[in-house]
Amino acid sequence: MVHQLEGDEDHNPLDPSSLPALSSPLQIRPYGAADWPAVWALLAPVFRAGETFPHDPAITEAEAQVAWVERSQAVMVAVDPAGAVVGTSYLKPNSLALGAHVANAGYVVAVHCRRQGIGSRLCQHSLQAARRLGFRAMQFNLVVSTNAAGIRCWQRNGFQVVGTLPGAFRHNQLGYVDALVMFQALVEGPTP
Amino acid sequence: MVHQLEGDEDHNPLDPSSLPALSSPLQIRPYGAADWPAVWALLAPVFRAGETFPHDPAITEAEAQVAWVERSQAVMVAVDPAGAVVGTSYLKPNSLALGAHVANAGYVVAVHCRRQGIGSRLCQHSLQAARRLGFRAMQFNLVVSTNAAGIRCWQRNGFQVVGTLPGAFRHNQLGYVDALVMFQALVEGPTP
Repeated sequence: MVHQLEGDEDHNPLDPSSLPALSSPLQIRPYGAADWPAVWALLAPVFRAGETFPHDPAITEAEAQVAWVERSQAVMVAVDPAGAVVGTSYLKPNSLALGAHVANAGYVVAVHCRRQGIGSRLCQHSLQAARRLGFRAMQFNLVVSTNAAGIRCWQRNGFQVVGTLPGAFRHNQLGYVDALVMFQALVEGPTP
Repeated sequence: MVHQLEGDEDHNPLDPSSLPALSSPLQIRPYGAADWPAVWALLAPVFRAGETFPHDPAITEAEAQVAWVERSQAVMVAVDPAGAVVGTSYLKPNSLALGAHVANAGYVVAVHCRRQGIGSRLCQHSLQAARRLGFRAMQFNLVVSTNAAGIRCWQRNGFQVVGTLPGAFRHNQLGYVDALVMFQALVEGPTP
């Protein structure tokens, strides 16, 4: 349902030279069951903060696993050269059968690893994966309007704001704030 | 997730004299388990048609019951004076905890009873119910752009189109068509 990037870098993905220098290559690979503790360590502070994802800030670890892993079609982790999981993403259909050709994704990057391009890498990877899986578009349903870094990142990666939902997100610190619907076509033109 | 009215009347709800004359009063009351066969008789042709709701047109009766009844906070039926169920609606939160103050609803009216104002009555009832339950807004996430009667009805009942999702609905007859996000605030101004 939700699609939030917590913090992100500030570069132009079309220009590799503008990428912040990662200290070393980042690996993005499929999530495995053994990754859960590390993924939960990323998700917990983000969910607890209640500033970007709509999940109950008091969500339990088991509920988070259902939400992030079990309800997803693909879950990825970003792993740094030391083997530490520093980011994660999920990918799934955004709606039921006749809306299931539109993908939905969400991203979380470790707090201490932000502004390094990891969110953009995860986003680009999920867009490629979505294309490979036959999705025709990707949609974020509830992008918190105060999440400026996330919004900039997704816009740089091809998403457009297609609508504003007044007061649709109850921000843990700011109260009711607007949420955005963001969308990106993954195929060109209409289909027969 | 979805919010569709199949067909509707063409009147101005602000002007009672413009209401089509219902042959007699319509009762809107809470759904009870005994109503399911009648509700399924309304839902089945709509889901099978694949023109307004995103559910798999091959949805089973049991799956439809889960989708319409069990996942809803409130389900209503519109009953004509002869006791026949001629319409139904559901009401539920549109998102998780921090987005759960926005309601979502869906409406279906019997094919042979359309253009009588039943959809509008169900919509108005659900808006009142949503206010009573403390929802701050109502949102429809995937209004099929070809559902002109439904869109007109919701606009007359206070909804605005806040966004267009290109090709987001795979219409059973027309292929990929746009879907609209419609929204209506139920409270005035921002909240502390």
